[in-house]
Amino acid sequence: MAVYTDVGEEELASFLANYDLGGLMSFKGIAEGVENTNFLLHTERGYFILTLYEKRVAADDLPFFIGLMEHLAARGITCPQPVKNRKGSALGELVGRPAMIVTFLEGVWIRRPNVSHCTALGSAMAKLHQAGASFELHRKNALGIDGWKNLAHLAAPRADEVSLGLAQLILEELTHLENNWPRSLPAGIIHADLFPDNVFFLGDRLSGLIDFYFACNDLLAYDIAICLNAWCFEIDGSFNVTKGRALLAGYNGVRKLEKREADALPLLARGASLRILLTRTIDWLNVPPGALVRPKDPLEYLKKLRFHRRIDHARDYGLAA
Amino acid sequence: MAVYTDVGEEELASFLANYDLGGLMSFKGIAEGVENTNFLLHTERGYFILTLYEKRVAADDLPFFIGLMEHLAARGITCPQPVKNRKGSALGELVGRPAMIVTFLEGVWIRRPNVSHCTALGSAMAKLHQAGASFELHRKNALGIDGWKNLAHLAAPRADEVSLGLAQLILEELTHLENNWPRSLPAGIIHADLFPDNVFFLGDRLSGLIDFYFACNDLLAYDIAICLNAWCFEIDGSFNVTKGRALLAGYNGVRKLEKREADALPLLARGASLRILLTRTIDWLNVPPGALVRPKDPLEYLKKLRFHRRIDHARDYGLAA
Repeated sequence: MAVYTDVGEEELASFLANYDLGGLMSFKGIAEGVENTNFLLHTERGYFILTLYEKRVAADDLPFFIGLMEHLAARGITCPQPVKNRKGSALGELVGRPAMIVTFLEGVWIRRPNVSHCTALGSAMAKLHQAGASFELHRKNALGIDGWKNLAHLAAPRADEVSLGLAQLILEELTHLENNWPRSLPAGIIHADLFPDNVFFLGDRLSGLIDFYFACNDLLAYDIAICLNAWCFEIDGSFNVTKGRALLAGYNGVRKLEKREADALPLLARGASLRILLTRTIDWLNVPPGALVRPKDPLEYLKKLRFHRRIDHARDYGLAA
Repeated sequence: MAVYTDVGEEELASFLANYDLGGLMSFKGIAEGVENTNFLLHTERGYFILTLYEKRVAADDLPFFIGLMEHLAARGITCPQPVKNRKGSALGELVGRPAMIVTFLEGVWIRRPNVSHCTALGSAMAKLHQAGASFELHRKNALGIDGWKNLAHLAAPRADEVSLGLAQLILEELTHLENNWPRSLPAGIIHADLFPDNVFFLGDRLSGLIDFYFACNDLLAYDIAICLNAWCFEIDGSFNVTKGRALLAGYNGVRKLEKREADALPLLARGASLRILLTRTIDWLNVPPGALVRPKDPLEYLKKLRFHRRIDHARDYGLAA
């Protein structure tokens, strides 16, 4: 949880004067989202989310994200829609930061997903992959396999402070993945961060996807691997194969996984584990003084990585033969 | 920035089943409020605030707060209204904490109040004092003068870590205030925490008051003293007498201050400064490891206290003769 930047009502009023949203009725900082500052905004025209982008690097990528959210919505994927100002741009500036208003998406994220949530997630992810196929902009996955070497160099020197032997494990795993990574599988737009807090439900119905700020071009099955990690493990660290089966069946019902994708799944899942293990380790070792963010536990993903190292076939994740 | 207890959607759904609010459409943690956890709740019936009370001590006082908010609203003071469950109670329990739903109040709190905001605040506070006169429950001010001795004993031993000489100043000031405190002035219901973030505006119009969890019975003019501190000093520490004049004129236009109240104002303002100085000093010295709260600067209130020690007449705050 984090609100990094407060906004005065005067700055906000003059920012909103560029939009056709009517008068400001309330705004409140939201205690969700780690990367950016989010406010719930109520104006005479309705409810919106205002996001301030805290990391300078994001600014260049914003046209990709804006275009993608519009492209997906036009193809039936429910996601927040960028609101354009009177100049026709969705991108503005507020207290010195890139800022965007998007429509408010109803729904609740599920703290403890059950089997039917996993089915719905699998199906929605496959639809996203299909809808993304015709999107023309490209964005390299900055946190994909080509970025892990840099992350490993940042994480390794002090990784043993997190867990003894972690530094060596990271470097070994990186070498193994680089030598065996399947670079010619079906690729396209992936969300790359479909953790439960980015998937909204209304009752049992999946109502939409949010937070496209890691979306990029990468292997489609890598997105599945991320979700197996994020949705199908129990709190005690055990893999729930019923949830895995549901997720994969939900996906397969929309877009059939190719055999070579299925074969690669254990390796992709190791990669997806390493990626989160690396960024969480770095965050863990670099909590800034006075931070309002409590870092997430890297060891959760060390356990997941170790689990995947023992898997040799996607049927162990529940994939139907 | 809030203490923060997350609530699962299942717990929330079963909590909401006790209310006639329809289905849950969204809920988001709000990054405001220091004492409690607040969520913005959207159900089929509208928008609400759900509060979890984090400190056990509050539970006994909740009937007072609930009754007061209802009493004030019935007398024209706009404030959040407790929502009753199907058993007719506004007080429930969620994840082991006392919990309450109140109506959502539109408005924006003013980061940098101007003179007209101060007039509106003075007037609203006087109306609150008048409306509270007929409220029948009583609540002692736990952080009033009779509580300062305990606070001073908590703060003093390490107060010099905050500012050299602070411990001695606290004890001297406490003695002076205890020997001179005017105990027979007009008393009644006060809000006791009318800082700008608890006063909402829509445009230039004051739209409501929130956060009654310090409300209590105490000297009415002490509420004014709290507000002179919270609304009429500039960021550089200087007192803006134009704002003071506006606040006092706004108040006097509704409820005329008695001469003995005006005479006591410098002393009450010293007390109001000491109270905040004490709690901020204690918070500053006791930030728990991993806290998500950044403590507020105690020295701001040390400067205000020193300012008031040099004042001998309420006209120096802008009170009209």
